[in-house]
Amino acid sequence: MAKTKPKVSPLAPEAFPTIPPIDGVRVATRACGVRYKGRTDVLLVELADETQAAGVFTKSLTASAPVDWCRKSLPGGIANGLIVNSGNANAFTGRLGEDAVEQVVEAVADRLACRPSRVFAASTGVIGEPLNFKSITDNLDALAADLAPGKWDEAAKAIMTTDTFPKGAVKEAQINGTKVTIAGIAKGSGMIAPDMATMLAYVFTDAKIPAPVLQGILAPICERTFNSITVDSDTSTSDSLMLFATGAAGNADRFSGPDDPALKDFRTKAEAVMRDLAHQIVRDGEGASKFIEITVTGADSDAAAKRIGLSIANSPLVKTAIAGEDANWGRIVMAVGKAGEKAERDRLNIAIGGITIASNGLAVDGYDEAPVTAHMQSPEINIAVDVGVGNGRATVWTCDLTHGYIDINADYRS
Amino acid sequence: MAKTKPKVSPLAPEAFPTIPPIDGVRVATRACGVRYKGRTDVLLVELADETQAAGVFTKSLTASAPVDWCRKSLPGGIANGLIVNSGNANAFTGRLGEDAVEQVVEAVADRLACRPSRVFAASTGVIGEPLNFKSITDNLDALAADLAPGKWDEAAKAIMTTDTFPKGAVKEAQINGTKVTIAGIAKGSGMIAPDMATMLAYVFTDAKIPAPVLQGILAPICERTFNSITVDSDTSTSDSLMLFATGAAGNADRFSGPDDPALKDFRTKAEAVMRDLAHQIVRDGEGASKFIEITVTGADSDAAAKRIGLSIANSPLVKTAIAGEDANWGRIVMAVGKAGEKAERDRLNIAIGGITIASNGLAVDGYDEAPVTAHMQSPEINIAVDVGVGNGRATVWTCDLTHGYIDINADYRS
Repeated sequence: MAKTKPKVSPLAPEAFPTIPPIDGVRVATRACGVRYKGRTDVLLVELADETQAAGVFTKSLTASAPVDWCRKSLPGGIANGLIVNSGNANAFTGRLGEDAVEQVVEAVADRLACRPSRVFAASTGVIGEPLNFKSITDNLDALAADLAPGKWDEAAKAIMTTDTFPKGAVKEAQINGTKVTIAGIAKGSGMIAPDMATMLAYVFTDAKIPAPVLQGILAPICERTFNSITVDSDTSTSDSLMLFATGAAGNADRFSGPDDPALKDFRTKAEAVMRDLAHQIVRDGEGASKFIEITVTGADSDAAAKRIGLSIANSPLVKTAIAGEDANWGRIVMAVGKAGEKAERDRLNIAIGGITIASNGLAVDGYDEAPVTAHMQSPEINIAVDVGVGNGRATVWTCDLTHGYIDINADYRS
Repeated sequence: MAKTKPKVSPLAPEAFPTIPPIDGVRVATRACGVRYKGRTDVLLVELADETQAAGVFTKSLTASAPVDWCRKSLPGGIANGLIVNSGNANAFTGRLGEDAVEQVVEAVADRLACRPSRVFAASTGVIGEPLNFKSITDNLDALAADLAPGKWDEAAKAIMTTDTFPKGAVKEAQINGTKVTIAGIAKGSGMIAPDMATMLAYVFTDAKIPAPVLQGILAPICERTFNSITVDSDTSTSDSLMLFATGAAGNADRFSGPDDPALKDFRTKAEAVMRDLAHQIVRDGEGASKFIEITVTGADSDAAAKRIGLSIANSPLVKTAIAGEDANWGRIVMAVGKAGEKAERDRLNIAIGGITIASNGLAVDGYDEAPVTAHMQSPEINIAVDVGVGNGRATVWTCDLTHGYIDINADYRS
């Protein structure tokens, strides 16, 4: 099963950002040999007492065993630990999979002196193979001994599967005059088998925010960030996004709810962190050579705009045209048409790189091709579509579809 | 815009079938220079008086002008003519597009001495460019003079765009003791821009069947044939399927409805013709090296089974795995999970080439890999999935996703 070894994506950021430690969060990573040799593959995170937790998980109906575990524990609202392994997804492993999660989580709870229901878990990698959980539990003493603040780049590296670069982001925010920090790590680069390249994202803050409010903040941000990106339209069995708030910043924390004006800056900065991480996942899309932003306006509703945007973003014909640097708006029209949402052909407008090339249902006669051609040759592509029926709007992000995607995913055996 | 010139698909049938003339149908083709040079690009069909018509058209909300025309005329139930051009789709052409259809259809009606509403039309090719309708109308006298029975291969060739072979199929059936013939032609090979490679299929019979009954027969067959194939999940603005019954066979034609037992053989054979044509379209899928049949059983309903089947068939990860001859059932599990339909992980069964490789939610320990490997190396791949919740079932067909698809669709400009 020889594979093309991926180099670092040409769309990767220049470097991993500088992220300060978050009070109440300690991290350890280790090469446990779950599947990979010679690299770290387990991440243990210790979270301060009473750390508040929020989460959003895959919509897949064949979710992995750790996702089932997290869903069951999340209503408790408190997290003291997080354990993530790469190399094996512990998905489609039936009863054995459930047992493996319990074994790992209970062993972590022992080390962190907390209830198992306060330990969250994730696994990413090959599916359908029993997880060798002893490779993790045998290393827990060493991991616990290594726990230390910071080390975000190590944390981001330990959860990588086929990612070509580690992904991190950070922002500061103010809550009631107190400075808080929001830091996140993520992995994901489309879905590569046998490594089902799950999207995992963990965001940590020292802000003091109760779990129900945290959940109310996280869910809509997830819709506009991680749920607004697509590499190949495939959904992993293990996708997980969690937001942990340790409360160490000690801000005043009486909030009317997730929309409380005192949380406005926090919401904005948390969304910036998650949008940054989501974009990095697209930038690591398998074989990606272009980062594509698609904004749809004039739709019946925001949800309709998003469905039209994803229809364009998931169209293999649109993605291959962009790979070929071809401003092929006919394929965009096709994708709008197949989305199944209201659109007015005779009021459809399409702009590429800011230049309107189709207006009111007709190609713009003699539009200036030179800037459009130059835009198509750049690594960042911008498409704006107005479908002319209402006020709904959405932005989604994707990458192009190239020979690189086929190289990575068509696992030619010799 | 240099393109890889496609050779004939390796999955093509050995030859175009021998199809007899159908009484009441006369055909002419001509090189009119709509866009292509040096090949026929217009098909004119004359249909006997009182020929009954049924049709199913694209669900795209940005349908082409000729599709709008056909939808408006179909309730009349009678067809005397059909005009199809390749090279220009007359889609996303606004008012100009509607005018062009009217010009063409009225000119055809003049030649065939019938009402314009009895002339059906289709256009396939580049979209967003005004159709030079004079290239068609100027050639109508010559086309009308050429009308003759048979010539199905010429008809199939004239409507090709990026197809690599002409597509035809034929069957005989009995209705109330009378022999009737059902013959069809089709084009389509995924969607290639700038030629939006629309699926067009026209089926002709000398059977005598009233239009409402014909429509009731056609719609469910379309669901199980043309609407059960996918090349790249993209939907054309122009997809059209029509069934014309000239009545020349003179069979007894008192039917209780589309389910009348007297029409059983006709329904079976018509479905066989349409399934054959649908399969040929998949076999001409861009870059296809494998023909893939996916049967889903045990679903909540037939519709749920079909959605799960299409989720598998449209998954780039499943398609690239098959291109790589990799029996990657993990990707199949993922695609079942993302379909959004009920599935029981612990009762999921997956067989490839007749060999069960996952059973009751677990990989089958030590299944015989040799026949599965041999099957994956063959050009015809069979996947069977039972999702363990009900009695719904469906079969869908697709092809693999290869470098050939990228070559054809990523239109690298120099």
